[in-house]
Amino acid sequence: MKLSSKNLEARLDTVYDAIVVGGGMGGLSAAIYLARYGLKCLIVEKGKGRSMWMQDLRNYVGLDPETSGIEILKQSTKDAIDWGADHLRGFVEDVTDEGDTFAVKVKVGKKDEEGTTFRSKYLIAASGVIDKLPETDNMQNVYDYAGYTLHVCMICDGFDMWDQKAVVIAGTEGQINAAFVLNWFTPYITVLTHGLCEVGDEMRQKLADHGYPLYESPIVKFHGEKHKMSGVELADGTVVEATTGLINMGSIYHNQYLKNIEGLEWNGENLVTNDMAKTTHDRIFALGDLKQGLNQVSVAVADGTKAATQIWRNIRRASEPRKWDENIKETASV
Amino acid sequence: MKLSSKNLEARLDTVYDAIVVGGGMGGLSAAIYLARYGLKCLIVEKGKGRSMWMQDLRNYVGLDPETSGIEILKQSTKDAIDWGADHLRGFVEDVTDEGDTFAVKVKVGKKDEEGTTFRSKYLIAASGVIDKLPETDNMQNVYDYAGYTLHVCMICDGFDMWDQKAVVIAGTEGQINAAFVLNWFTPYITVLTHGLCEVGDEMRQKLADHGYPLYESPIVKFHGEKHKMSGVELADGTVVEATTGLINMGSIYHNQYLKNIEGLEWNGENLVTNDMAKTTHDRIFALGDLKQGLNQVSVAVADGTKAATQIWRNIRRASEPRKWDENIKETASV
Repeated sequence: MKLSSKNLEARLDTVYDAIVVGGGMGGLSAAIYLARYGLKCLIVEKGKGRSMWMQDLRNYVGLDPETSGIEILKQSTKDAIDWGADHLRGFVEDVTDEGDTFAVKVKVGKKDEEGTTFRSKYLIAASGVIDKLPETDNMQNVYDYAGYTLHVCMICDGFDMWDQKAVVIAGTEGQINAAFVLNWFTPYITVLTHGLCEVGDEMRQKLADHGYPLYESPIVKFHGEKHKMSGVELADGTVVEATTGLINMGSIYHNQYLKNIEGLEWNGENLVTNDMAKTTHDRIFALGDLKQGLNQVSVAVADGTKAATQIWRNIRRASEPRKWDENIKETASV
Repeated sequence: MKLSSKNLEARLDTVYDAIVVGGGMGGLSAAIYLARYGLKCLIVEKGKGRSMWMQDLRNYVGLDPETSGIEILKQSTKDAIDWGADHLRGFVEDVTDEGDTFAVKVKVGKKDEEGTTFRSKYLIAASGVIDKLPETDNMQNVYDYAGYTLHVCMICDGFDMWDQKAVVIAGTEGQINAAFVLNWFTPYITVLTHGLCEVGDEMRQKLADHGYPLYESPIVKFHGEKHKMSGVELADGTVVEATTGLINMGSIYHNQYLKNIEGLEWNGENLVTNDMAKTTHDRIFALGDLKQGLNQVSVAVADGTKAATQIWRNIRRASEPRKWDENIKETASV
């Protein structure tokens, strides 16, 4: 059922089998499986996730490669609800481990100052990351190219940068290293720091050895039209010619609500999980970009499958067998 | 490129980066990624795989749940070829590890008695399994229901059996245990052995405790119409009323071509793999139903992603950096 501030009262006494934080590809996969296992689940989706930025998903089996992230989210959100999942637009502010259940405090709309609390036996953290983009005076100019010819994922989009003149935009010296990997797809690379970091002598030498120009002046605007880049204008007046770019400025993790929970093992901002996407907490699973591993849609979707299946196994094994109802006893005739 | 006996000569001197044995969901995912990494790959597909039997794929994010296995295979085979993969209809008879390469002997069509040999640096085993079905005098009658209301995967289709009268068809005593799991979805279960195994006293007692009738007479035919089961007729004249069924008779593994390769660790018929779908042989990856884990499309697709990505990383790290071509040196103007 689609929940909103108007009808969520009906679910305040429900103890869900699982609450899925994040309605991206991984969270939806978990919800579809949970619902088809007959388990009660709630997806809480804040909107504006990483997959919403995908103009097309070219490497995911079964889909036309022109399919956009928004189309996939729409289809699968509908499917999850059709199979029986609840779906709520809201922001998870905090989670409290109550022992057998979690209390999940959700801010539903701007007026919900106190937050609304839902309860579940299991928690699936699928709230992902959002890529940092270079901040400029006119962010619309950045959005005009991000997801089109200005990419954030080399594995996804390196192919579409083949032998083009490319910029790598890095916010730290370490992030510049992406240029030496992008070299596989194109050697025509210029590195931009947007004025965000110092670059040491060793890195300067390595860039020079590869023949990669380095510009440290802030980006003023991207040039081009109809989402097709032609260059990048810097504050010092330089215009770098480039038809594509890779932004490698790191990610913002949506994991604050997990920070007070005991028993979770972290690797930086990523959760450590086992081969069924379970964290080191027995009732918390993590998937997609929040966990260690490849940040690919296919991997997130599989991890959703695994998390839901393990939760189903746990709940099923702890349940009494259902009984044959007397009313439909007769099944064989001779 | 689509290869056949007519044009395969063009590829006999090629050393592929990877040959993918099996063009199901997992193999196609690997091929799409390999091609988008700019690697040379060949998919060898024998046809009639497990996914071809899927009338709809209801639990895979992004697809309309009515989408059939055949539609997905068609779309993604086209995509893989469009991105640059080669695709050949043929049967892999044998693989020889030559040290740096594999010699993969493929039977292409009935006339190809000697087999045709292709070479690759890496091998991706994605040739899967096929489910054993109960053999009857009229197999068409079995196929009329298999994949529609007579299922082979409880995780996939348990939801669609909810509270229905169901038969569990098992070929060994151990396989009968599926009935106690199917209980989650429906308690109205009758067990059929198709006359294939002895059932011990302990199992008989357990079935009686659950209230599950056991019939050991061979199946003669399925009753119903338009792919909708209504019952199962046995050789002794019994007709068991059932609107759905689960076949749990094990699988036939397509892994013979790997049996002479040294260094592979097996768990029964499944290959042991690491978290990037690599087997214990450094140049062989395995995915989908051939490896340990959940036999789910989403998992096979993710494993294809991982195998291709690891192969790309290996090959990339062993390559010299590409150089900036003098002809397009100028990128910045002030």
